[in-house]
Amino acid sequence: MWTYQAPVADMLHLLTRVLDAPASWAAQPALADLDADTAAEVLAQAGRFAGEVLAPTNAAGDQQGCTWSPAGVTTPPGFRAAYRAFVDGGWPALACSSDAGGQGLPQVLNMALFEMLAAANHGWTMYPGLLHGAYEVVLHHGTPELKALYLDQLVSGEALGTMCLTEPQAGSDLGLVRTQATVVAGEAANGVPVQVSGSKIFISGGDHDLTVNIVHLVLCRLAGAPAGTKGLSLALVPKLRPDGARNTVVCDGIEHKMGIHGSATCQMRFDAADGWLIGEPHRGLAAMFLMMNAARLHVAMQGVGHLEAATQNAWRYANERLQMRAAVRPADAVAAPGPDPIAWHPAMRRTLWTLQARTDGCRAIAYWCALLLDEAEHHPDAARRATAAGHVAILTPVAKSLFTELGHRSADEALQVWGGYGYVRDYGIEQTVRDSRIAMVYEGTNEIQAIDLVQRKLLDDGGARARALMADLAAEAAACRSRPALQPFADALAQQLALWEQALQALQAGRSADAEHPLRVADDVLAGVGHALLAWAWARIARTAVQAPQPAVPGARSADQWLQSATFGLQWLLPQAQVHWQRATQPGLALPFLAA
Amino acid sequence: MWTYQAPVADMLHLLTRVLDAPASWAAQPALADLDADTAAEVLAQAGRFAGEVLAPTNAAGDQQGCTWSPAGVTTPPGFRAAYRAFVDGGWPALACSSDAGGQGLPQVLNMALFEMLAAANHGWTMYPGLLHGAYEVVLHHGTPELKALYLDQLVSGEALGTMCLTEPQAGSDLGLVRTQATVVAGEAANGVPVQVSGSKIFISGGDHDLTVNIVHLVLCRLAGAPAGTKGLSLALVPKLRPDGARNTVVCDGIEHKMGIHGSATCQMRFDAADGWLIGEPHRGLAAMFLMMNAARLHVAMQGVGHLEAATQNAWRYANERLQMRAAVRPADAVAAPGPDPIAWHPAMRRTLWTLQARTDGCRAIAYWCALLLDEAEHHPDAARRATAAGHVAILTPVAKSLFTELGHRSADEALQVWGGYGYVRDYGIEQTVRDSRIAMVYEGTNEIQAIDLVQRKLLDDGGARARALMADLAAEAAACRSRPALQPFADALAQQLALWEQALQALQAGRSADAEHPLRVADDVLAGVGHALLAWAWARIARTAVQAPQPAVPGARSADQWLQSATFGLQWLLPQAQVHWQRATQPGLALPFLAA
Repeated sequence: MWTYQAPVADMLHLLTRVLDAPASWAAQPALADLDADTAAEVLAQAGRFAGEVLAPTNAAGDQQGCTWSPAGVTTPPGFRAAYRAFVDGGWPALACSSDAGGQGLPQVLNMALFEMLAAANHGWTMYPGLLHGAYEVVLHHGTPELKALYLDQLVSGEALGTMCLTEPQAGSDLGLVRTQATVVAGEAANGVPVQVSGSKIFISGGDHDLTVNIVHLVLCRLAGAPAGTKGLSLALVPKLRPDGARNTVVCDGIEHKMGIHGSATCQMRFDAADGWLIGEPHRGLAAMFLMMNAARLHVAMQGVGHLEAATQNAWRYANERLQMRAAVRPADAVAAPGPDPIAWHPAMRRTLWTLQARTDGCRAIAYWCALLLDEAEHHPDAARRATAAGHVAILTPVAKSLFTELGHRSADEALQVWGGYGYVRDYGIEQTVRDSRIAMVYEGTNEIQAIDLVQRKLLDDGGARARALMADLAAEAAACRSRPALQPFADALAQQLALWEQALQALQAGRSADAEHPLRVADDVLAGVGHALLAWAWARIARTAVQAPQPAVPGARSADQWLQSATFGLQWLLPQAQVHWQRATQPGLALPFLAA
Repeated sequence: MWTYQAPVADMLHLLTRVLDAPASWAAQPALADLDADTAAEVLAQAGRFAGEVLAPTNAAGDQQGCTWSPAGVTTPPGFRAAYRAFVDGGWPALACSSDAGGQGLPQVLNMALFEMLAAANHGWTMYPGLLHGAYEVVLHHGTPELKALYLDQLVSGEALGTMCLTEPQAGSDLGLVRTQATVVAGEAANGVPVQVSGSKIFISGGDHDLTVNIVHLVLCRLAGAPAGTKGLSLALVPKLRPDGARNTVVCDGIEHKMGIHGSATCQMRFDAADGWLIGEPHRGLAAMFLMMNAARLHVAMQGVGHLEAATQNAWRYANERLQMRAAVRPADAVAAPGPDPIAWHPAMRRTLWTLQARTDGCRAIAYWCALLLDEAEHHPDAARRATAAGHVAILTPVAKSLFTELGHRSADEALQVWGGYGYVRDYGIEQTVRDSRIAMVYEGTNEIQAIDLVQRKLLDDGGARARALMADLAAEAAACRSRPALQPFADALAQQLALWEQALQALQAGRSADAEHPLRVADDVLAGVGHALLAWAWARIARTAVQAPQPAVPGARSADQWLQSATFGLQWLLPQAQVHWQRATQPGLALPFLAA
């Protein structure tokens, strides 16, 4: 009953009409060949893969899950075939540089691709999910010899990558990592050869049957390294040694999880496994962050994907299910006797609009962030690159937390639309609830993202990046002032930015007297900034609807429908921000320690 | 790793110190024999059963679930033994009248019992969950002969009861029920004999191996009955006929669900099954409501149970798990090197206090509602009975929705405390998240509760019951005025009541011009009323802490700890109410129909 059809036309509308991506691409020589038609074709093909090839494997992935044996992990039925089709379609190479054999397309298209993949089958998507991050680490930190060995394999999808960080005692606190790396004598052409020993847990795709080789990027500690995060190094440890023999990397078991059963979450044992240091000794975390930042944005896209999947399935079911007469029927309704579609009942309309407005708002922010990521890399103007990078630094933790929370919570709220059927496996929405839950946890819990936002992104530079971002957001409020119909959007956005500025000042003022204050209200600051961004997104969507740029994207929703969604967001959802800003600006709010 | 220990001392503190239940019991002749010591002993025994007998079966119930075969349903390992112990302990009879062989104890103790059972093993608790409701229906609507046949069996727990309402096309809309009842000639000593034919779905405990007989209460339609809910009758259909032969009631299968795997959710087929009408023809829904109201309060208690289970497990884990140095340590902390308990980190403290304040607030409201239920039945003063019944009418939908939403959401938020471990089956919290989800759906979805509250409970009598309840709540604000330390509680409660009154007037005013207005904002009205009740509960808990009645309940939390929890609720959680009240008083807030 659960289906996923990629909303390609709506995605294109946001990308090319609301955000005017073609103008951004035209300004960047590396992307100047790309136009709206090519982007449309890429998204259409991606949508077909996600909807026709991948989505049909989603239920089996959940119900049969992965199986483990000492020989390794077997993925659920259909996963291997879907992965072959993914590789044959050239999708792993989408955003890899053409110098490295990739297609050289921008991150924004890769993000849209991964939104669709996660929506279609989150569990499966975990396998290629770290591929691009691993590619970036090898590209930027590998020796020429290591690149020759592994870059092609990653770009083509012949090998997949993992990120081996967590250990039983080291979760949010990576400073506690114990895995050891010992430098060994011998052939050193590929970089410093090491033997890696230790146990890692929660390793997504640590073993599987989709590819023959797997490239593990392992956070570890050289003998004599300092304690804490400043003593961490990064090693590349392949499942198969370059001579084709099995390395001493063993998957000892997989976790039984709440969701994403199709993803093998592995307990990995490295037993003097052969590998090479990648990047400088003791600077492993810096190299790994390249991968973690990409991973955080991928996780953010999972949130958008779950939002979309919940929204389109709830909408369809609510139109089909007939229960009770509605108190008021739509003006153009055929006056049939008997019960009405539940989509006409106010409680359900409210839920459906909530889902739609969140989906539209989050997707607009997400694509904007991805466009900025491309500008930060490719824009010819160094100042533009720096500003874009500053925006991305703030947007990344917000997008990760906001989208994953709204993705999960929206799926959970959507379940109500099905009533009792929603709780039953056959209807699929409960799987979306379970699958979406992990995104709030991994790649840094949402609480860790909030601390990152407040301390590193808002306070550490005195608020400079935040104010640069606010200035760009304020431009949208100014643009909205030109049309009377858009005044409420302009006012709301301006108010959000004023509250953000107030909170920033309160945090700066409170911090010196009370070191814990920013930490106590970090979740609220993130939620407040998230709502400010949503206010910006709804304003921009509404302005585009009012201005109605031509030609319209064929098949996209009408301007009226976009405006209704944005207006609902403004009127029904944005008021929630006031609770968060209010707490964020109250330094005195006590949070006692708990008696044990 | 997941455990449940009933917080008996805290429950007693709320019951006997905060709510002064013994004074209420003393005023009611039917309960005048009951004192605080007896109540303490009952709760202590119930706590031992829940913690020592039932909780250890919880994980197996989830992981092995029920199995179905054409011969019937087999419950998970340990379920039968736990049920035998439950019957041997006399628990089914707890709140049944002593005339009917019960223990004649008040509903409030039964509610506390079912809170513990649901916390310990929600799936198992579904089986005895409808027993008391079935007992009430048979007691009040059965002929003497039917009572002779079934009342003893229900009171003793020899038989269990079901509530057969839902059909595939009839969920929230019971007017669409099609199951037919045909009056048959013959021996009519037990009431009007009927044969019942039709299919029912989502029947909790429709079949199982805990008891030999099962008493089904089936909503059905006599030949020639009017369409809609006014043509529904109620039939009692036993699994075994009085002669011991199998009736033609068949369980055709069980659902695969998100959670409560230990509860058999049955597809039932009645094939000209023998039964008797219970209550008047076409008045079945009225008779069934006796059962549904009891069921709604039981579901509310499930919410409280999940809140408690999430809170105590999260608290324990947060004290054990060491990650990172805290920015600030407790004043009395031993200055150990290395990482600190995550319970010291502000983000986790905030989550833990959120859980604790919700648990305390919801439990206080729940027990107050149960005390009122007893007063509505037993108080010698008719005016007191009427007032109590009016309060219960409003509290029931609010308690059902508020507690189940907070129960589920709190479990979901608690999962973050475990990080990645929270997503893994072995730690148990993800089971609590899945199990708790159903309570927002069944016995009337939370949206249906909100409509019931707004239309039937707040508006249909012109607000009379609401204002009577508000007046009683206002007395608590007045009591808090006598102590300076309690002023913030008095102010906050008074403000909530003022906002409630404003919303009531806005609803009354808006309704005539716009019939849909109360439906559009029903969820907000319910959330607003819920927060007003929480403000009352936290005020009352705080006042009790400040007044420190002696003797304190041995083993209960200290007065300081109760005050900290109530203060946290007041400062951090209550501000959320303003968003709900604001929407509830905005008649113009548009909610367009969705284009198909």
